[in-house]
Amino acid sequence: MSTSSTASAAKPPMRDALVAAAFQLFLERGYERTTVDDIVTLAGVGRRSFFRYFPSKEDVVFPDHERCLAEMTAFLAERGTEHEPVRRVCDAARLVVRMYAENPPFSVQRYRLTKQVPGLRAYELSVVWRYERALAEYLRGRFAGQSDGTLRADVIAAAVVAAHNNALRSWLRSGGRTDADAAVDHALGHVQSAFACPAAPGAGQELPGAQGGFPRAGHPEDVIVLVSRRDAPLWRVVQQLESARGRD
Amino acid sequence: MSTSSTASAAKPPMRDALVAAAFQLFLERGYERTTVDDIVTLAGVGRRSFFRYFPSKEDVVFPDHERCLAEMTAFLAERGTEHEPVRRVCDAARLVVRMYAENPPFSVQRYRLTKQVPGLRAYELSVVWRYERALAEYLRGRFAGQSDGTLRADVIAAAVVAAHNNALRSWLRSGGRTDADAAVDHALGHVQSAFACPAAPGAGQELPGAQGGFPRAGHPEDVIVLVSRRDAPLWRVVQQLESARGRD
Repeated sequence: MSTSSTASAAKPPMRDALVAAAFQLFLERGYERTTVDDIVTLAGVGRRSFFRYFPSKEDVVFPDHERCLAEMTAFLAERGTEHEPVRRVCDAARLVVRMYAENPPFSVQRYRLTKQVPGLRAYELSVVWRYERALAEYLRGRFAGQSDGTLRADVIAAAVVAAHNNALRSWLRSGGRTDADAAVDHALGHVQSAFACPAAPGAGQELPGAQGGFPRAGHPEDVIVLVSRRDAPLWRVVQQLESARGRD
Repeated sequence: MSTSSTASAAKPPMRDALVAAAFQLFLERGYERTTVDDIVTLAGVGRRSFFRYFPSKEDVVFPDHERCLAEMTAFLAERGTEHEPVRRVCDAARLVVRMYAENPPFSVQRYRLTKQVPGLRAYELSVVWRYERALAEYLRGRFAGQSDGTLRADVIAAAVVAAHNNALRSWLRSGGRTDADAAVDHALGHVQSAFACPAAPGAGQELPGAQGGFPRAGHPEDVIVLVSRRDAPLWRVVQQLESARGRD
């Protein structure tokens, strides 16, 4: 699979040619020793063409984050209150892994390059920060007026990004051979189960998606009776409860 | 309060003089238009003295993060299994707010400066990332061999950092006038209540600190009987449970 396989109708071939040329040179001679002039010479275009698509050499390493950030922002802007907020930001995060999984060899190459070049890691941190802010802003809107709304928004956004990136890195370390979507689903399920609770959009309101995605055994209409001492650690009680509900 | 009030016995006066000179110039003429030469001229020392303390101009803006990172690493290296892991990383994060609260006017000045200068924000992101990695590495050690250990470690570390920074930013925006410790305690309490549960160091082991810090009403040895339908949303059941325990 070549770099151009990430091309969609919206992406001009010259942009793809620049990305392909840049990566060929980064791998041959290293990132630091490749100049924008080297890239445009290999791609057979002028410097102005490069800067029309990429503000800097760093941007050519991450050619699709701007598109993905725009997609995420648009996705989160569809503010239906029918979406359970934590589930919604998890779905938004899935847009990122999908971008990586569009072209595994390219994503893996870039991962290896980014680990070696401190400037690229700094760039990546700033991109991750922008994704996290987009998720947090959405949640702040959904939790507006609620007690500790901004705190919960920031914490959940950070947890979602950390879970997503944990799974994404495992996939990248596997050389793109494992199932990226399954790994991210598993990781995000962990965050949903930790946070689905305080994410209620309003008292008494139904949360159609809140428990979706978690398979449950047993008959849903069974009644569970749980007896515990008041001073038992809460986590143990919740563990017993989950186990009784067949979700352990 | 002057910048030198952060001085401890371990910090040489020349280092403090460089920080004071740097901030005086940053405020007078802006960060970008201040050079290292300007700073050393005002402080009355040579360039080599500057670079003995600070690798770059950016580092003089954050003179205490290296010390704080070292303290955090040392604190987390005392690996007693008697420490409940989530509580331990929350305590480690408190070292950071304490550093900021040592000198409120300096911290507030720096916060305003950092918001204006993109290069400093990038630098700050990299520092935050190092704190988060320190917390995550500790938790990965504590959760080693457990199912989803690295995932849980990364998510909890990110949540702790996000909660800490949410409270820290509120304090900085208040001009350093509110109670930084109280704000951070409140924010970290939120993370502890979300995550104290899967943080058990081992099955059947006691967690002396797991529930500490959360005041509870009622008699600890009361028995709580909770009846719920199996298909009731888990968050609602936990909410009822918490309310019955007097922790709501």
